[in-house]
Amino acid sequence: MILYNMPSSGNSYKVRLLLGLTGQSADCVDVEYGDVALEKAKAALPFGKAPVLVLDDGTALPESNAILWYLAQETAYWPTTPLEQAQTLSWMFWEQNQHEGVIAVRAALRTYPHRAAQATPERLEELLRQGNALLQVMEKHLANRDWLVGSGPSIADICLYAYTHSAGTRGGYDLAPFPALRAWLDRVAALPGYVGLTA
Amino acid sequence: MILYNMPSSGNSYKVRLLLGLTGQSADCVDVEYGDVALEKAKAALPFGKAPVLVLDDGTALPESNAILWYLAQETAYWPTTPLEQAQTLSWMFWEQNQHEGVIAVRAALRTYPHRAAQATPERLEELLRQGNALLQVMEKHLANRDWLVGSGPSIADICLYAYTHSAGTRGGYDLAPFPALRAWLDRVAALPGYVGLTA
Repeated sequence: MILYNMPSSGNSYKVRLLLGLTGQSADCVDVEYGDVALEKAKAALPFGKAPVLVLDDGTALPESNAILWYLAQETAYWPTTPLEQAQTLSWMFWEQNQHEGVIAVRAALRTYPHRAAQATPERLEELLRQGNALLQVMEKHLANRDWLVGSGPSIADICLYAYTHSAGTRGGYDLAPFPALRAWLDRVAALPGYVGLTA
Repeated sequence: MILYNMPSSGNSYKVRLLLGLTGQSADCVDVEYGDVALEKAKAALPFGKAPVLVLDDGTALPESNAILWYLAQETAYWPTTPLEQAQTLSWMFWEQNQHEGVIAVRAALRTYPHRAAQATPERLEELLRQGNALLQVMEKHLANRDWLVGSGPSIADICLYAYTHSAGTRGGYDLAPFPALRAWLDRVAALPGYVGLTA
């Protein structure tokens, strides 16, 4: 397998993290914003963005969470009951529709030079307010459980971990008011096979 | 099953459409913007929004695309091979991350009174440009196939149909340059059990 991988992106990091946790491997082709490699790779990226997993038969599979789903089949990171499977997907769709569009976007505006012009104080303030509300949804859910779904880690946790664990350092969110969330981040980081964002 | 359903919303419509296509039924509780019913229902909506499917054991399942996935199991709308299943999810995550945040948002800005203040000419113009690029992704993909994945309709088609079929009337997009897309819309509308947005 070949992974078109953007080193700075949480969406690509999700895939590298699950590969590590499940003992799988892929050859990484790094495509970073501003690099010639990204322009050269675009024809291989079905929706024009990374990550994309190219399977051994040549099929290019886009979308980080669909890649997580594919790689998690037959592993402990995909729950076994239809209800827990559906709940896992609920968190993953929420991540792409709500969480990523706020928390990852605020981090991008603060850290990518090509996004700086959009980083107005009003926009950053609004994303701070929205992001804190989203982190509170996770805090409330995790207050009385160790993992987002069921009794063990799933791709719902891996998916949400990527941009949440860097929400403080990159996004500028204060995680102090979210103790259950911080304990959950520590649990993910302690999983066997864990790899960091910049590992 | 009980469906917390927002009549005006494409995300809720997806679920009603799949229920019709697969011969399933749920009791609808309508929760529309501005209605008291929405405020009263919020405690039952895990992420604070509709649709939510409440299963017979009382579990509240949020996120339209996770609900589609749950309802499609054991039906022809969920493909049978892991690769086609993953490709179906790719389109569904793309819909929530890219398509819905542009095409549904432009429709919302044009049609919901409580969003009117955000409907600046600059924002509508940018959403028009972005939306046309997204419709072109679908046009290109559908140019040589009848359905988004595999040889028959799947929940990828149902998911993308919801906001695409109203992109002209509600979103203000011109669908004339997208003939393959329009033929695909007609194929979905001809499926046995089809129900319309306002049926």
